[in-house]
Amino acid sequence: MSDIVPKKLETSEDKVNFINSFDTFLFDCDGVIWHASTVLEGVREVLHTLKKMGKRVIYVTNNSSKSRATYLKKFQNLDLPATIDDIFSSAVAAAFYVKHFVNIKDDEKIYVVGGEGICRELEEQGVHWCGSDLDNKPISEEEFTEIQPDPKVKAVMFGFDVNINYRKFARAFTYLNSNPDCLFLATNTDMTYPTKYLLFPGTGSLINTLIAGTKRTPTILGKPTTNMMDCIIQKFNLDRSRTCMVGDRLITDIAFGKNSNLTTLLVLTGVTTEEAMNESKDIKPDYYISSLGDLHA
Amino acid sequence: MSDIVPKKLETSEDKVNFINSFDTFLFDCDGVIWHASTVLEGVREVLHTLKKMGKRVIYVTNNSSKSRATYLKKFQNLDLPATIDDIFSSAVAAAFYVKHFVNIKDDEKIYVVGGEGICRELEEQGVHWCGSDLDNKPISEEEFTEIQPDPKVKAVMFGFDVNINYRKFARAFTYLNSNPDCLFLATNTDMTYPTKYLLFPGTGSLINTLIAGTKRTPTILGKPTTNMMDCIIQKFNLDRSRTCMVGDRLITDIAFGKNSNLTTLLVLTGVTTEEAMNESKDIKPDYYISSLGDLHA
Repeated sequence: MSDIVPKKLETSEDKVNFINSFDTFLFDCDGVIWHASTVLEGVREVLHTLKKMGKRVIYVTNNSSKSRATYLKKFQNLDLPATIDDIFSSAVAAAFYVKHFVNIKDDEKIYVVGGEGICRELEEQGVHWCGSDLDNKPISEEEFTEIQPDPKVKAVMFGFDVNINYRKFARAFTYLNSNPDCLFLATNTDMTYPTKYLLFPGTGSLINTLIAGTKRTPTILGKPTTNMMDCIIQKFNLDRSRTCMVGDRLITDIAFGKNSNLTTLLVLTGVTTEEAMNESKDIKPDYYISSLGDLHA
Repeated sequence: MSDIVPKKLETSEDKVNFINSFDTFLFDCDGVIWHASTVLEGVREVLHTLKKMGKRVIYVTNNSSKSRATYLKKFQNLDLPATIDDIFSSAVAAAFYVKHFVNIKDDEKIYVVGGEGICRELEEQGVHWCGSDLDNKPISEEEFTEIQPDPKVKAVMFGFDVNINYRKFARAFTYLNSNPDCLFLATNTDMTYPTKYLLFPGTGSLINTLIAGTKRTPTILGKPTTNMMDCIIQKFNLDRSRTCMVGDRLITDIAFGKNSNLTTLLVLTGVTTEEAMNESKDIKPDYYISSLGDLHA
């Protein structure tokens, strides 16, 4: 039960005081900065202003399918201020975790269900991987015997994969089921994946096929876990008391900030409505605002 | 808690008395009759003998991916006695259920995740379908907007699908999520799918992606539900007291028999071991035998 009564940022004074309280802003992207590929009104100006004021701006996304380089192109195409180091995805967190917390040997590898984002970040950390787009070809029953246990697979890393198929499920299942020492890692557990008009099944839905089949519980590396925040704090050497997490979902973004003792700002342009915020018992933001663009006025 | 103490069929007298007690035998296939495409020792002779004795033999499988015609070819290739009417798959039960228990109009259809087995059986019942192998092509993010709610989709029917992909998950999710009147049906909930050497994820694992994403519970039409048995009893006009269910899994086959007040025989050539049978608290077979082939001696 949370005792916080979220404060709405309404007057210019509210907004100026709010901005002055922080050196760093962590932004969720979809539902905060854009919807699919449309920048929300006023957001471009707010981000440029924050940068001009010398604030550190970091984009934190649970989307692990794109590499940071691909993500950066999206920011540039949309005329949003960003460098590659301003982008922090769950794929970055996942690779960081494997490098620093998994005792992986040179001849061992990670089986990746997910897109190029995870693979590029693993490569940056010098970690070998298999699977991902190399397993995009559908499997036939005649090929089932090709899939065998492999003790060199140190972990299955599961992220959002638009090319998910039975070959990937069967391989991941086999590695996890045949070897209790094979780790089960996930970039995130978002149940839905936002598209232009509709919500589709997210990583948190897809991974349930493996959870149900193997009866194993994955270690989650993205929002809202402290794994991801610890990685951000360490990488950017941040002062938690001067850092604010901004997002549109209570159960990922706001919980992400609260779990790591950061101040939080909820924007109402995405998943969580004002009504849902008021009804939430466990997770409340410190501040809320109708949209990030409103911070400008 | 079951009070039954399973009786082992050991002596010739045991076996003769057992066979004489029944007119009809319902057989699970994998782990009872064959492993993948190898007939278990002695089973061919037992089946031919039962047929010669005038017993009704029905093959009951939760595998919905193949049509009965395709399944029949497997029996013929393996020199096992069968006609098309002796084969009863969860796809048959599923189509029977849609025809008799779903008020489906002429311009409505079923969205199928699964193989040709389900589609052929729906066609036999005069029910329109979409999806299945028509959706085998992987989807790109650019194509996401092609998927839209469709009130003409009366139900999502989920079965084992070796060509499962994100297009199918997203379509099924969208129909279920956008329309509370769209029914959620499943051919079975077997967590694993037996292959030649290994267990792979089964329908009951794959469907968890949709259960988690939609927060909806499917209606199960295959073993061990009474839905499937009611359909068999009605179709073949069977006397339950003279019918025995034979299988290798407590939680599907034996529960299937018990749920419908049939006598049951567990064979130890598949999933359930003698130890697991003894340890089971809720589900016990009436009889057990080391292998179906042993019934011959």
